[in-house]
Amino acid sequence: MDIHDSPLLTDLYQLTMVDSYLQRGMVGPASFELFSRKLPPGRSFYIAAGIEETAAWLENLAFGEDELEWVRSCGHFRPDFADELATMRFTGHFDAVPEGTVLFPNEPILRVTAPLPVAQLVESRLMNLVHIHTLLTSKAARCVLAAGGRRLVDFGMRRAHGAEAALAAARATWIAGFDGTATCLAGALYGIPTVGTMAHSYILAFEREIDAFRAFADAHPDNVILLIDTYDTMAAAHKVVQLTREGIPVKGVRLDSGDLADEARKVRSIFDEGGQQQIQILASGNLDEHEITRLIAAGAPIDGFGTGTLVDTAADQPHLDMAYKLQEYNGQPRRKRSTGKMHWPARKQIFRVFNEETCAGDTVGLADETLSGSPLLERVLENGKRLGPATGIQQIRERIRDNLRQLPPACLRLDASPEAYPVTISSALEEAARKADSYQV
Amino acid sequence: MDIHDSPLLTDLYQLTMVDSYLQRGMVGPASFELFSRKLPPGRSFYIAAGIEETAAWLENLAFGEDELEWVRSCGHFRPDFADELATMRFTGHFDAVPEGTVLFPNEPILRVTAPLPVAQLVESRLMNLVHIHTLLTSKAARCVLAAGGRRLVDFGMRRAHGAEAALAAARATWIAGFDGTATCLAGALYGIPTVGTMAHSYILAFEREIDAFRAFADAHPDNVILLIDTYDTMAAAHKVVQLTREGIPVKGVRLDSGDLADEARKVRSIFDEGGQQQIQILASGNLDEHEITRLIAAGAPIDGFGTGTLVDTAADQPHLDMAYKLQEYNGQPRRKRSTGKMHWPARKQIFRVFNEETCAGDTVGLADETLSGSPLLERVLENGKRLGPATGIQQIRERIRDNLRQLPPACLRLDASPEAYPVTISSALEEAARKADSYQV
Repeated sequence: MDIHDSPLLTDLYQLTMVDSYLQRGMVGPASFELFSRKLPPGRSFYIAAGIEETAAWLENLAFGEDELEWVRSCGHFRPDFADELATMRFTGHFDAVPEGTVLFPNEPILRVTAPLPVAQLVESRLMNLVHIHTLLTSKAARCVLAAGGRRLVDFGMRRAHGAEAALAAARATWIAGFDGTATCLAGALYGIPTVGTMAHSYILAFEREIDAFRAFADAHPDNVILLIDTYDTMAAAHKVVQLTREGIPVKGVRLDSGDLADEARKVRSIFDEGGQQQIQILASGNLDEHEITRLIAAGAPIDGFGTGTLVDTAADQPHLDMAYKLQEYNGQPRRKRSTGKMHWPARKQIFRVFNEETCAGDTVGLADETLSGSPLLERVLENGKRLGPATGIQQIRERIRDNLRQLPPACLRLDASPEAYPVTISSALEEAARKADSYQV
Repeated sequence: MDIHDSPLLTDLYQLTMVDSYLQRGMVGPASFELFSRKLPPGRSFYIAAGIEETAAWLENLAFGEDELEWVRSCGHFRPDFADELATMRFTGHFDAVPEGTVLFPNEPILRVTAPLPVAQLVESRLMNLVHIHTLLTSKAARCVLAAGGRRLVDFGMRRAHGAEAALAAARATWIAGFDGTATCLAGALYGIPTVGTMAHSYILAFEREIDAFRAFADAHPDNVILLIDTYDTMAAAHKVVQLTREGIPVKGVRLDSGDLADEARKVRSIFDEGGQQQIQILASGNLDEHEITRLIAAGAPIDGFGTGTLVDTAADQPHLDMAYKLQEYNGQPRRKRSTGKMHWPARKQIFRVFNEETCAGDTVGLADETLSGSPLLERVLENGKRLGPATGIQQIRERIRDNLRQLPPACLRLDASPEAYPVTISSALEEAARKADSYQV
């Protein structure tokens, strides 16, 4: 079993519900939509991601023999349930906003329309995929906004939550606009530029720090970025000037500890006084959009940032509110009324209005309404098959860049109001909500 | 390439350092140790986990042809580097505390001793594995302490950070003492008991709530736990009493929204007044150790808790301080002096002293010292091969239970002081640190 593709990467209740639906012949068409009710504090938007991975997963959904064997032997199900699962495929429709689209609360990211058991079955992994990619891409986009064009690279693999999260972080930071990742496997699988030179252990493995610097320049003359905070940062900066005068092509140095703004200023002075204005200063260590903003505001002469743990775990907000809810079954709109968990029922569409090059407002309406603005949800899979080629990460990267450029300035602040962008509900959708609530229970 | 086993799931700097070491013949024995310098606020201990997964990964470490092709073509390396990597295996020693051991700051979780390039190469994925398992197991153990013997289940798969994190969460919660997980794949792969009944969408798919309740009881008569907060929780509770009187074997109900303590009290009254004292009340929705503690302190009549997002993302503290540092190279102790990042050098051992059934204090000394107390680090792999069978999750679960029982009460508080447990540094280790610092740089 490949853990990424296994249909057993789901919650047991999906299977108990599917079992019950099949027993009762409840296989009519159902539409579920995924959306976020509210954003974390200080955020006005998020970036929809994970759409392409989800489409690929849906297309290949199938129970293998090992998985069916577990269903037979786990003790939860009647004997013939596994046989029914054996033939189950995703034969429905998958509509979604293009990956990399900026979205706002209560707007559907995607819609699944399929026979009720299938549409239910896919919930857990679909959410798992869309959530991690959306979470990390949205976080990385904030770093890109904060860095104001300075170089940004992803160093966070070691503390990402496992292998899939590490790769998702490398992909997310790249599509959000970072310049590269340290994660080699993301280079091999996605073609993302890889970056990296040395750790403190490299310096420690040599008798003297300067021996390590020389050895690295010898092995990697095109990529001489030296880590200078292992022992005494200022002493190391003077050594760098000396090496440069000897002809060693030092491109930059990295600071990874201490007061980065203060250290960067002192190191910059040493380089400038030594006539080495061309040597760049890179910084890493506990960086995220907030710390990058603080360093830039403090006038720190830092040319590039390496982010790690705080971005790859989305540490200040490691989860997003996200719900996959039944909107319509057998043609009738549905919604639950649990306290604090209301949502807009029925199959919906987002209509985005532009004022020249800027987004001016969205309306969420019914999927079959025609309202002014560009509809955002598009069909990705029809009857389980892709309608067009998958979108590559380069194209998603450009879409995110363009979407961020189109946002009004109030949305781009790191402490934006959740209401910075106007989202309206159409009157037809309000009517559908009243209708859904009128059902007896 | 399996992303979990690929040696390219690493940071590029590991490969650039390995390349340089090989070019210079720096292949002498190196020892690296993994440890945590400090814990999050309110925590006095953590639980070492991921040891078994790491041992299995080290044993199988090898570059495949696809991976070597990336090394050849990525543009960072000399042509023959890939050929040298092709024969690289983990041929060193791996010492670690038994998985599930309670540890404190500055104590080594594990030690890798191998030729410098190999010991360096393994850093990133080793940390990635130990970090996610340790993070989630430590978080889950706090929930177990908070729940005071009440039933606990893991519902968090959908917002865990990807597939590996979701499985790690199911495993972590189980070894920490939970009663089951919703994640089917964890049942199939690890044999963890799986739990689950229905989502709100199940209720919504029926014309009337009571039809959904009856249908579920019909399909799963042994597992009738009904979700009662879709429309009107108290009305649903009365329906449950009615169904029970009709002979439907309702085991319990689940509340997933609103003020859980208040709703549970009201539902309990309806059941008790209806003569249904045996129906259990389970709660879910934004639960972690803090909220469980609050609910129990408020006297909420809740028999079991389902944790989700907040536990599976370790939301209040989604990363732990953890460092893999060169301790010794060619027989000489090493440590860096970066501001705020000092650590104890040399190969170390932890000696734990017991006072009857309670841990009384640890001493961190040199690996070849003999001090009073039980040494905790044991050899797992010698020359790359396992010395004994892998430890199963059942045994790890028992070890965690026993380790938690042995902790002094001050350590078990959810707002424990980081100094609640005495850890001493041996005088020989202090001397080794002075020696390491005496190197010229």
